[in-house]
Amino acid sequence: MEINLDKYKNLRREIDEGWINLHPIQRGGMLPPETRQALLSFGDGYSVCDYCLEGRVDLLKKPPVKDFAEDVAKFLNMDEVRFTSGARHAKAIIFGCLAEPGDTIVIDSLSHYTTYIAAELRGLRIAEVPHTGYPEFRIEPDAYAAKVEEVKRETGKPPAAILLTHVDYKYGNLADAASVARVAKQHDVPFILNAAYTAGVMPVDGKQLGADFLTCSGHKSWAASGPIGILAATEEFADRVFRKSSMRGPWSGRTFPQKEVCLFGCPPVFGTPIATLMASFPHVVERVKRWDEEVEKVRWLVRELERIEGFRQLGERPKRHTLATFESPSFHRVAREHKRRGFFLHEELRKRKIAGIHPGMTKLITLNTYGLGMDQLRKVADAFHEIAKSYNIEIK
Amino acid sequence: MEINLDKYKNLRREIDEGWINLHPIQRGGMLPPETRQALLSFGDGYSVCDYCLEGRVDLLKKPPVKDFAEDVAKFLNMDEVRFTSGARHAKAIIFGCLAEPGDTIVIDSLSHYTTYIAAELRGLRIAEVPHTGYPEFRIEPDAYAAKVEEVKRETGKPPAAILLTHVDYKYGNLADAASVARVAKQHDVPFILNAAYTAGVMPVDGKQLGADFLTCSGHKSWAASGPIGILAATEEFADRVFRKSSMRGPWSGRTFPQKEVCLFGCPPVFGTPIATLMASFPHVVERVKRWDEEVEKVRWLVRELERIEGFRQLGERPKRHTLATFESPSFHRVAREHKRRGFFLHEELRKRKIAGIHPGMTKLITLNTYGLGMDQLRKVADAFHEIAKSYNIEIK
Repeated sequence: MEINLDKYKNLRREIDEGWINLHPIQRGGMLPPETRQALLSFGDGYSVCDYCLEGRVDLLKKPPVKDFAEDVAKFLNMDEVRFTSGARHAKAIIFGCLAEPGDTIVIDSLSHYTTYIAAELRGLRIAEVPHTGYPEFRIEPDAYAAKVEEVKRETGKPPAAILLTHVDYKYGNLADAASVARVAKQHDVPFILNAAYTAGVMPVDGKQLGADFLTCSGHKSWAASGPIGILAATEEFADRVFRKSSMRGPWSGRTFPQKEVCLFGCPPVFGTPIATLMASFPHVVERVKRWDEEVEKVRWLVRELERIEGFRQLGERPKRHTLATFESPSFHRVAREHKRRGFFLHEELRKRKIAGIHPGMTKLITLNTYGLGMDQLRKVADAFHEIAKSYNIEIK
Repeated sequence: MEINLDKYKNLRREIDEGWINLHPIQRGGMLPPETRQALLSFGDGYSVCDYCLEGRVDLLKKPPVKDFAEDVAKFLNMDEVRFTSGARHAKAIIFGCLAEPGDTIVIDSLSHYTTYIAAELRGLRIAEVPHTGYPEFRIEPDAYAAKVEEVKRETGKPPAAILLTHVDYKYGNLADAASVARVAKQHDVPFILNAAYTAGVMPVDGKQLGADFLTCSGHKSWAASGPIGILAATEEFADRVFRKSSMRGPWSGRTFPQKEVCLFGCPPVFGTPIATLMASFPHVVERVKRWDEEVEKVRWLVRELERIEGFRQLGERPKRHTLATFESPSFHRVAREHKRRGFFLHEELRKRKIAGIHPGMTKLITLNTYGLGMDQLRKVADAFHEIAKSYNIEIK
């Protein structure tokens, strides 16, 4: 067996604290300094299990994971919370418990790909709620109502569940969750709100929004190293998704009455995922209160980037979330002629230590400003303007 | 909403490098110094996704995860490898792909609880292969053969799969995988070897052992922070467990042809789990060559602890793995009278900065010596002897 091991030595991330990182999925998952200490302290495998008496990480008293689960439930205004491998895992668990193979669920057409894959894993049929198309790509509650009616007509019964993506991955549109919840309630269908881009960065009140389930992402939006997700449920549904094992070894008689079946018995979040999620919680509770400032900052950057010829922010206006997509036909024109093709933009930004714009993409540019200071955003705007000018693109 | 956030501030693990840690599940998951550097560098959520063009963490070129997956396959002598949330997740994936609800699988009665739970999640019936009972608790290949025959008689068909726990969590017995593989082959049943306690600490050659699948645990045995598992398969079965999405959004036309359904599209191992698994790989490749030394050390400790009145190592003799369980009736007698009950032992050891003995347990003591030096093991033996003497228990 010949393996070249050198490439695994001194593994380091290129992008460090000296960079400005605009990566759409990374802004909400950056660790504050105090959490980096917890990361190191709990770095070894199974590190939180030192004093486990309970056999489940979410019940640990030391470190205080049990209290933490209760506090997260309060913070989200939901009844019960469990930790999962990510929002993707949380959605797969819910679909697995609410629907049988062949059932139909209604999702929005801006759903994250993991929503589709979670449905596929369970063998579900999906009905997609259309968006309003270019340039705003809105998901409207009325379209949900129409789609549910359509499913009822076609299948003879209501869908097994309705899922709405609270803020989508592509345009950063904030959907009207409370109105979709009312549609769900009218038809007596469980309502799942995928809050991967909202809970942890902006205020989210599950009950006020009418969610039966919230799915959240620690590594996306709770300043956690992860991967870790949060599955929050109302009391009404908690027993179905958090059911305990009734398995009994036919020869040994072994039973596992404390273990929860859909969470692999004890969910694989022990060690740094849960430690960093907990360590960042005080930071998260504080930062969601400053959401309005974050929205002001992204709006400022939108104005600055739209000064570049052809640049247009897509999705709803004005923005209500820090993830933003622009069409950028002037840059795309450069890419067609450039010897580095679409990579030129990524590379120009990289020279300036600005990271996170998808390598190769110039037709649409997606970025996230969450948590960046005005000084950093000014550098970003200047960089884009500079690059534009260097290719004779006009700045208004 | 009133939440006391103070308890989440300055979260630190009590057990640090100054301690000797005997925790049965933790010895193989400790990070070498170079991996702690990678842990910090890749600490932020989604940190390995900076240059993702592939949409799947296992296909990343930078950092070199694609090469890594191929190298891990070589190292295990298997054809294809994917990363999962843990061995528990790997088993759930395999059961989900090989068996239909109601099917029967054959497992050993020393299986980890996550094997039972993974079967329960899929709605499977389990048939347990008995062990030989006190004091050795061996799992014999003949018992597998008999159990498979029994399942055939009772259900009219062979089991959907056979799983063997290579080394079990309780006694640290090393099972005869190659012989169980022959039983599986005879009956044309897929054979899963759960190598959570073996691959990464001792040499494991999947093809030589006849495994169709290996499930491994990064946080348990590959010096990874995790949680991360490895699902290794032969070419014959790879397409079934790693099937790609065929979902198509009926309105949007969205497709996800690169995403693998059972792995949530892209498996939730991005960030520190995969970064630490990769960073530790050179260390792991080297350390498995020194397995014999590890076995010598645990045998030394067995001899020393068996000098204590009543102590007896359970499971096979001599030991072939570093996880060991002792019956310790003399300590249990002390616990019955002690004001701290069974916690006295844990607390006595804690005073001496020795961690990892289950709090409250004195009837059976499970520990793992993997990676500890002789100087440390001497301290462990001395501590046990000292504690014994202080309660008037004889040392032979």
